[in-house]
Amino acid sequence: MTNPRTPLASLSDDDLAGFLAEQRSAYAALQSRGLKLDLTRGKPSSAQLDLADDLLRLPSSTKDRAGVDVRNYGGLEGLAELREIFAELLSVEPSQVVAGGNSSLSMMYSTIVDFLLFGGVDSPRPWSQEETVRFICPVPGYDRHFSMLASFGIEMVTVDMHQDGPDMPAVESLVKDDPSIKGIWIVPTYANPSGAVVSQEVAARLAAMPTAAADFTIFWDNAYAFHHLTQEEAKSADILSLCAASGHPNRPIMYASTSKITYAGAGVAVLAASQANVKWYLGHLAMGSIGPDKVNHLRHVEFFRDAEGVRAHMRRHREVIAPKFAAVDEALTTGLDGLEIAQWSHPTGGYFVNLDVLDGTASRVVALAKEAGIALTPAGASYPHGRDPRDRNIRLAPTFPVLDEVRTAMAGVATCVALAAAEKLVADRASGVGAQGDGSTPSAQDASNPATEGASR
Amino acid sequence: MTNPRTPLASLSDDDLAGFLAEQRSAYAALQSRGLKLDLTRGKPSSAQLDLADDLLRLPSSTKDRAGVDVRNYGGLEGLAELREIFAELLSVEPSQVVAGGNSSLSMMYSTIVDFLLFGGVDSPRPWSQEETVRFICPVPGYDRHFSMLASFGIEMVTVDMHQDGPDMPAVESLVKDDPSIKGIWIVPTYANPSGAVVSQEVAARLAAMPTAAADFTIFWDNAYAFHHLTQEEAKSADILSLCAASGHPNRPIMYASTSKITYAGAGVAVLAASQANVKWYLGHLAMGSIGPDKVNHLRHVEFFRDAEGVRAHMRRHREVIAPKFAAVDEALTTGLDGLEIAQWSHPTGGYFVNLDVLDGTASRVVALAKEAGIALTPAGASYPHGRDPRDRNIRLAPTFPVLDEVRTAMAGVATCVALAAAEKLVADRASGVGAQGDGSTPSAQDASNPATEGASR
Repeated sequence: MTNPRTPLASLSDDDLAGFLAEQRSAYAALQSRGLKLDLTRGKPSSAQLDLADDLLRLPSSTKDRAGVDVRNYGGLEGLAELREIFAELLSVEPSQVVAGGNSSLSMMYSTIVDFLLFGGVDSPRPWSQEETVRFICPVPGYDRHFSMLASFGIEMVTVDMHQDGPDMPAVESLVKDDPSIKGIWIVPTYANPSGAVVSQEVAARLAAMPTAAADFTIFWDNAYAFHHLTQEEAKSADILSLCAASGHPNRPIMYASTSKITYAGAGVAVLAASQANVKWYLGHLAMGSIGPDKVNHLRHVEFFRDAEGVRAHMRRHREVIAPKFAAVDEALTTGLDGLEIAQWSHPTGGYFVNLDVLDGTASRVVALAKEAGIALTPAGASYPHGRDPRDRNIRLAPTFPVLDEVRTAMAGVATCVALAAAEKLVADRASGVGAQGDGSTPSAQDASNPATEGASR
Repeated sequence: MTNPRTPLASLSDDDLAGFLAEQRSAYAALQSRGLKLDLTRGKPSSAQLDLADDLLRLPSSTKDRAGVDVRNYGGLEGLAELREIFAELLSVEPSQVVAGGNSSLSMMYSTIVDFLLFGGVDSPRPWSQEETVRFICPVPGYDRHFSMLASFGIEMVTVDMHQDGPDMPAVESLVKDDPSIKGIWIVPTYANPSGAVVSQEVAARLAAMPTAAADFTIFWDNAYAFHHLTQEEAKSADILSLCAASGHPNRPIMYASTSKITYAGAGVAVLAASQANVKWYLGHLAMGSIGPDKVNHLRHVEFFRDAEGVRAHMRRHREVIAPKFAAVDEALTTGLDGLEIAQWSHPTGGYFVNLDVLDGTASRVVALAKEAGIALTPAGASYPHGRDPRDRNIRLAPTFPVLDEVRTAMAGVATCVALAAAEKLVADRASGVGAQGDGSTPSAQDASNPATEGASR
C-alpha cells in the first residue's frame, strides 16, 4: 500500500486523540453530503435484471416438449426440460429435481413444515412431536435461515464458518450424541456472507458423519452456485452423491434458484434430493398445489436453452458486479489498511463482503453510517436472533447500487469504522480497560478466528 | 320431452329385462367406438386459455404504479393495483387483500399450516396442540379440500349442501357446543360440484352463529365468483362485512384466483380477510417468501386494466363453455328423462354438473364409462375420504373437452347410468331386495335429500 499506517492500538494517547479528531472531522464532512445510499440487501441491480428482459416476450410457445399445454393445471414436479438444465448444473439426475415457484426460500420453508407436521422419510415421528428440535447454524450465516427457524421455535446452535465450510469437529461432536439436532444450514458455494466455499473434504465429512438423529438433514442452500466473481469458478461439492455413497441418501436436500440469475422476484426455484425425498416432498406438495407456474418454466427454458446458456448468462452478471466488489475492497483498503481495526473477505463469488470491525463497534458503525445516509444491514444480522456476541460483524451487499454509489458509500463506511474504533480505544484507555494488544483487535485474533482466516486482512 | 318414459322401477319384470337387454346392446355399441374422452377435472379448455394469450407478450413495463421494479424482490402483499382490482370484484378493501402466487389452494394450505403451527388471531393455542381438530364439510364438496384436511389428520364432519348453502341447523348445532370444530369449507358461489349459491340469509347465519371455538374459521373458497353461465349473474354474499357486523371479524378468510380466468397454472391467487388476519398471514408468510411474482401481477393488471376487464373477459369464457353445459343437460335429458333413475343439477355458473344416479350404482357407472373409454371423476370423490355413503354421486366436468366430445361422452354416460340402474333393479328383484318405491330411487328421496332440491330432475 502506498500509505502504510501504524496499527491504531499502537498509537500514543496523543496520536490516538489526533486520529479521533481527524475522523470526527471526516465524518462531519460525510454527514454534510446528505447521502441516501443502501447496502443492506443482496439484490440484483437494474442493470442485472435488464440482462433477462427477453423473458418479457417469452415463451413463444404454449406447449412443452411433450406437447403438454403449459398454461393449464398439473405437472407438479415442474417442466422436464427445466429440471434437466438444473440437473446438469447441479450434477444430479433430472428425476432428483423438483422445479417450483419463484422462491427457493419457500421450498425450504415447505420442507421444514413437512418435517414438523409429518416427519421426513427417516423420521421416527413429526418434529412437532419432539420435545426439542435444534439446528446447527454456521455463523456468520444467512439471516432468513435463522428467522425462519426462530419462527418455528427451533433452537439454534452456532458453530464457526471457516473458509472451507463449518467447523467440522464442532459439528461432528454436536450431531454424534444429541438426537435433538435435526439439521444444519449450509450455503456451500460463496456462502452468505463470508464467501466461503465448502471443500470436498468437508462435504465428505458432513455426508459420512454418524448422527444420533436418523433424520438429520443437511439443508444445502446452493443459492450462489453459479455466481462467480472471477474466472476461477468454484465447483460445488456433490453432496447428494457423497451422502448416498456414505449410506445416508436422504440426508441432504439441495436448493437453488434463478432469483439472482434472471429476475429476483419472478424466477424459478428448484429442490434436489434423493428419489425417496423427492417422492416425500411431492406427496405433501400435492395436497396444496395445482402445479407450478409452467409458463414461467417454459419462459426460462426458452431463454436459457441449456445449462451452458445459464453459465454464459452468469458471465454477463459478473461483468456488471465484479467492479462493485473491487470498489468495496479498494475503499476499505484505502481507508483502513494497516490500522488493524478491521478485516474483510475477498469473495470470489456470491453477493456479499463480510466485514469484521473492532469488537464491540459494529452496532456503532451501522448507527454512524445511518446518520450519514448510508443504510447497512443491522449489526448482528448474520447471527441467530440478530445477536453477534462480539458485536463486530457487518454484512455488506454491494450489488444493488450503481458503481459510483458503491464507491461513495464504502468510503463513508470506512470513515465510520475508523471513527468507531478510535472512539472505542479512547474510551477503553480512559476507563483503564484494555490497551495495545488487549486481544480485541482482529490482528490479535486471527489465530483464534478461523471464520475469516485467509480471507481477510 | 318428446319421449315420455315410464319410471324404470315401475316396469314389469319382463319390460325391465327388455330394457336391460337394450342397454347392454347400446353399451356394446358404445364400447366398440373406442372412445378416449375425459370429463374428470374442472380444467379450462384450450379455447378458454387462448382468450388470455395476450399475457404472453406482457407486461410492457417493468415498474408498478409506484415506480417499484416488479422484477426484483419484495412487496409481500402483492401489487397494489392488482389488489385493488380484486378488492372491487370481491367487495372488500384493498388493504384486506393479499395477492400471491399461482394457486389459491396453496394459500388455503398455508393458512391451515399457520393455524396448525402457530394458531390464528383468536386461537388459544396452535391447532397441532389440540387433541382433536374437526372441520364441517358440506357434501357433496370439493375433493381437494377434503384430501388436504385428511393429510393434516383433521377430522371431517359432513352436512348436506343445499341449494342456498350448507344445512344451517346442522352447522349451528355442531359449532355451538363443540370447541374441536375449528372450521368449515364453503364454496359460496356456484359450489363445486352442486352449483349452489350461498344465500344472503345463510351467509348471515354463518357470520352470526355462536361457536364454541373462539377461532372457528370459515374458509370461503370463492373459486367461481365470476364464473357465470347465464346472464343472471349471482352476487356473492359479503361474508367479511357480515362477520364484522356480527362481532366476528376474523371468522372468514376468502380465497379467489384467476386460474379459471386467465391461465389455470399461471394465474394469480388472492386471499381476503380482516386487517388482523391479513397481518397474521403476512407475518408468517414473511418467514418463507421473498415476495410474490410481481411480474405476473403486473402482467395481469395490464391485461385486465380494471375490474370491468375481468367481467368482460368472463363473458368470453361463458360463450365458450355455456354450450357444453347445455350439451350435458341435453344428453342426460335425452337418455334418462322420465326413468327416475337420475337427477342432475342445472348450474348457472361454475365448472361442474352434479349427477346423482340410482343409489348404489355410481361406482358401477364410472367403471362402465371407463371401460368404454370415458374417464369420469371417481365415484365418491365429492365426499371426505372418497366415500359416498349412498354411492350415487358423480361429478361431471364438461369444460375441458371440445363441444362434440362433450356430446359424445355424455350420451355414453347416459347409457352407462341406464345400464347400471337396470342391472341393479333386476338384481334387487331377483334377490328379493326392494322393488318399486323402495326408497332407493331419487324420485322417492327428493323430500329427504335437500342437497339437490330444486336443482335436479
